[in-house]
Amino acid sequence: MPSADLRRHGHELIDWIADYLDGLAERPVLSPVRPGQVHQALPVEAPRLGEPLETIREDFERLIVPALAHWNHPRFFAYFNSSSSGPAILAELLAAALNVNTMLWKTGPAATELEQVVLGWLRALLGLPDGFRGWLYEGGSSSTLHALAAARQRALGLGLREGGLYQAPRLRVYASPQTHTSVDKALMTLGLGLGALRRVAVDSDHRMRVDALREAVAQDRRAGLWPCCVVATLGSTSCTAIDPIAPTARLCEAEGVWLHVDAAHGGALALLPERREDFAGWEGADSIVVNPHKWLMVPLDASVLYTRHPDVLRQAFSLVPAYLETREQHQVEDAMDYGITLGRRFRALKLWFTLRYFGQEGLQVRLREHLRLAQEVARRVDAHPLMERVAPVPMSTVCLRARHPRIAGGEQDAFNRRWLEAINATGRLFLSPTELDGRFVLRFVISGLRTQAHHVDEAWQTMDLTLGELLGCTLDRGPTVR
Amino acid sequence: MPSADLRRHGHELIDWIADYLDGLAERPVLSPVRPGQVHQALPVEAPRLGEPLETIREDFERLIVPALAHWNHPRFFAYFNSSSSGPAILAELLAAALNVNTMLWKTGPAATELEQVVLGWLRALLGLPDGFRGWLYEGGSSSTLHALAAARQRALGLGLREGGLYQAPRLRVYASPQTHTSVDKALMTLGLGLGALRRVAVDSDHRMRVDALREAVAQDRRAGLWPCCVVATLGSTSCTAIDPIAPTARLCEAEGVWLHVDAAHGGALALLPERREDFAGWEGADSIVVNPHKWLMVPLDASVLYTRHPDVLRQAFSLVPAYLETREQHQVEDAMDYGITLGRRFRALKLWFTLRYFGQEGLQVRLREHLRLAQEVARRVDAHPLMERVAPVPMSTVCLRARHPRIAGGEQDAFNRRWLEAINATGRLFLSPTELDGRFVLRFVISGLRTQAHHVDEAWQTMDLTLGELLGCTLDRGPTVR
Repeated sequence: MPSADLRRHGHELIDWIADYLDGLAERPVLSPVRPGQVHQALPVEAPRLGEPLETIREDFERLIVPALAHWNHPRFFAYFNSSSSGPAILAELLAAALNVNTMLWKTGPAATELEQVVLGWLRALLGLPDGFRGWLYEGGSSSTLHALAAARQRALGLGLREGGLYQAPRLRVYASPQTHTSVDKALMTLGLGLGALRRVAVDSDHRMRVDALREAVAQDRRAGLWPCCVVATLGSTSCTAIDPIAPTARLCEAEGVWLHVDAAHGGALALLPERREDFAGWEGADSIVVNPHKWLMVPLDASVLYTRHPDVLRQAFSLVPAYLETREQHQVEDAMDYGITLGRRFRALKLWFTLRYFGQEGLQVRLREHLRLAQEVARRVDAHPLMERVAPVPMSTVCLRARHPRIAGGEQDAFNRRWLEAINATGRLFLSPTELDGRFVLRFVISGLRTQAHHVDEAWQTMDLTLGELLGCTLDRGPTVR
Repeated sequence: MPSADLRRHGHELIDWIADYLDGLAERPVLSPVRPGQVHQALPVEAPRLGEPLETIREDFERLIVPALAHWNHPRFFAYFNSSSSGPAILAELLAAALNVNTMLWKTGPAATELEQVVLGWLRALLGLPDGFRGWLYEGGSSSTLHALAAARQRALGLGLREGGLYQAPRLRVYASPQTHTSVDKALMTLGLGLGALRRVAVDSDHRMRVDALREAVAQDRRAGLWPCCVVATLGSTSCTAIDPIAPTARLCEAEGVWLHVDAAHGGALALLPERREDFAGWEGADSIVVNPHKWLMVPLDASVLYTRHPDVLRQAFSLVPAYLETREQHQVEDAMDYGITLGRRFRALKLWFTLRYFGQEGLQVRLREHLRLAQEVARRVDAHPLMERVAPVPMSTVCLRARHPRIAGGEQDAFNRRWLEAINATGRLFLSPTELDGRFVLRFVISGLRTQAHHVDEAWQTMDLTLGELLGCTLDRGPTVR
């Protein structure tokens, strides 16, 4: 593309993005598009001749943008949201232009070193000691796969590389029913199978019970199985339950079992000194995943896996063919030695831009505001005659249900499903579901960079109104979010 | 970031990028930076208070950019280059602003459908039939891991998900010594172990020998092993060797063995009708990897895995917890069901922009020019009294060595290493090494979007001059690239 065109289109698209972000609140969060609608509107073949960028942009604005879920929308309260901050958007633009592949130190010296520097910064912000080294991966699922591969590597030793699992003793991995399914997928991928996973009972707040864990490990040892890894979660996906990390770490240490901590979403809260007690003891973990692309204002994709055993991770993944040898390879760390992928984007750039632009305090202010807003939503749910809160709110996720004396017990799930669909159909907000204690539950997650009190209030009004309409009656709205 | 600031910085950065790309040829391709230099120049801690973007940008330009390898540089001839075209850079900017997570159809309907549409376009451009479905992954290594997981899944059936590999028969995977190490890494990751890999002999052009493959499979069957997968490569990493795909596909079909084709780099050439014969028969493969981020002008990361068995891939990876259920899940394809990762960037956007902006013919013109320039380099190497070409040039990669009667046979590798280091130290071009037939070899790969005849000529002059200096004599330069 001629450089004059790149400038012109670039300037126009920057303005388009600024307008898009400014106007997000006016858009429906979720598009009302039907399955197949976009597909049908697009040609079935690539063009033979090149097209002007104007035409492509027109189609982008006309066909693509209105048919998306808007993850940066201030009323996106589904899943765990991922926000793209302004500085991170600009960093991604630069990364695409530089197009550095960080597979080797040599193929991007500054990119490789910046990754280590920035992950060192984040490690310190999280209150983790020096001994942890980190690398950036595509997402939490990928980080967890690498962590479990390292745990397997430590349990089975060097023979694993050559011999695989055929002769291996039966490994066991422990996790609560609230643990993210990325653990299940990792076990399938690694050839350990879902059968290797032992579910450990939780308490009434969905936290893993350490006594049950201890008993499970002992039982397995008696049965000749090899306890390999415990996955503890600090901020579970359904309800941000916080597993008791200190006693779990002590147990793992005593048992020689790898402790992997999934703090993909919740880890961000370790930036707050007043929340450190939930994390006390996590420095005893063997590996920890924290996703900057969840609650640290960095767009997809950027997940960090920290480990105290980089040598083990390296043993699980390092292979250096002749075409990847460099003169510097024994003086430097080549990122390709610590994972599956070879081609790696320059992900550290957006994290660097974001941490510097906001600073520690800027991030803390935003996290605290999310926590405050979530407590306010929790209070409103508690005060509402036709809603119930079904889990504690240790982070910024509120789990709730509608209830009404006229709805029979067996129909409450179906009613709540209808309520969720009705809420999302308004386009005014986006909530996602989960299941807790066998019941269908709505999750209200506040972690978006652009979410302010009035957005939460507007969302609440819509939820309340929708419930009223669904119940065929009008209900008192309750107080306004301050 | 206030929207006025986003506009101002955005416009300035667009201009910076245009200037950067315009001025790339004047920069050294490889930075002369020493290991640790960037690390030491950066603060050890994140700032407590936010910093202005101006300061961050200054550091970016002063500390980061001069210490990179410039992958978009027109004289980057190392590895397999990855180019970022103008339209793709702009698409990445938009993707970062939208920040759509394409894990589910619902969380990005247009993004999910655009991925299928664009991968359908590319499939047709490559001459592959309808039956192939594709998904975008992080890179070739990740695509290959998913392909081998699918092959394993088909061989072992549903019991694998639960039971893992413990009770499984011994699987065998076949590949030539030229096959990319991503296959080795995948076998380690999947728990099959490097021992599962059987190396199949190659002919003098480094192409897998089908007779040797047939014999290896038969031998393994007699030994009670289970032939599971053959990996054939169309464009090997060292020297772009093209395995004979049609007879391999027939053998795999007859044997009921999964055929995975690694065309991560070389697949792009299937866009050229005159090169289709190298690909004839690849429609019989069970899975194929092609990386748009290699030779299709799309920046990192974007790798496509096509398969005729999406159901098997799904069986290997699908798991739907309650928090990811959607009303639409039975009407649509959710990308998370086809892979390890959950959080997925909107990678299809840059591929869509690029295919439309260049059009089929625009891409063909560039590929043909790369092929022409590589033939010219090959001719010059052949004509040079002190160089030898050590492999055929079926694509745009030339493998060469220096030779001189005064250098003893045992010292030729060391001399060539010194030559490569001397070439790269000039900063005028970047070549990378490999090993062929046990000898150290230099690779000259022409696949960059911005590479023109005069860049190749300048690189050639530098190589020649460096060799002359190293040999302590001045040599005839040979003809100019036309």
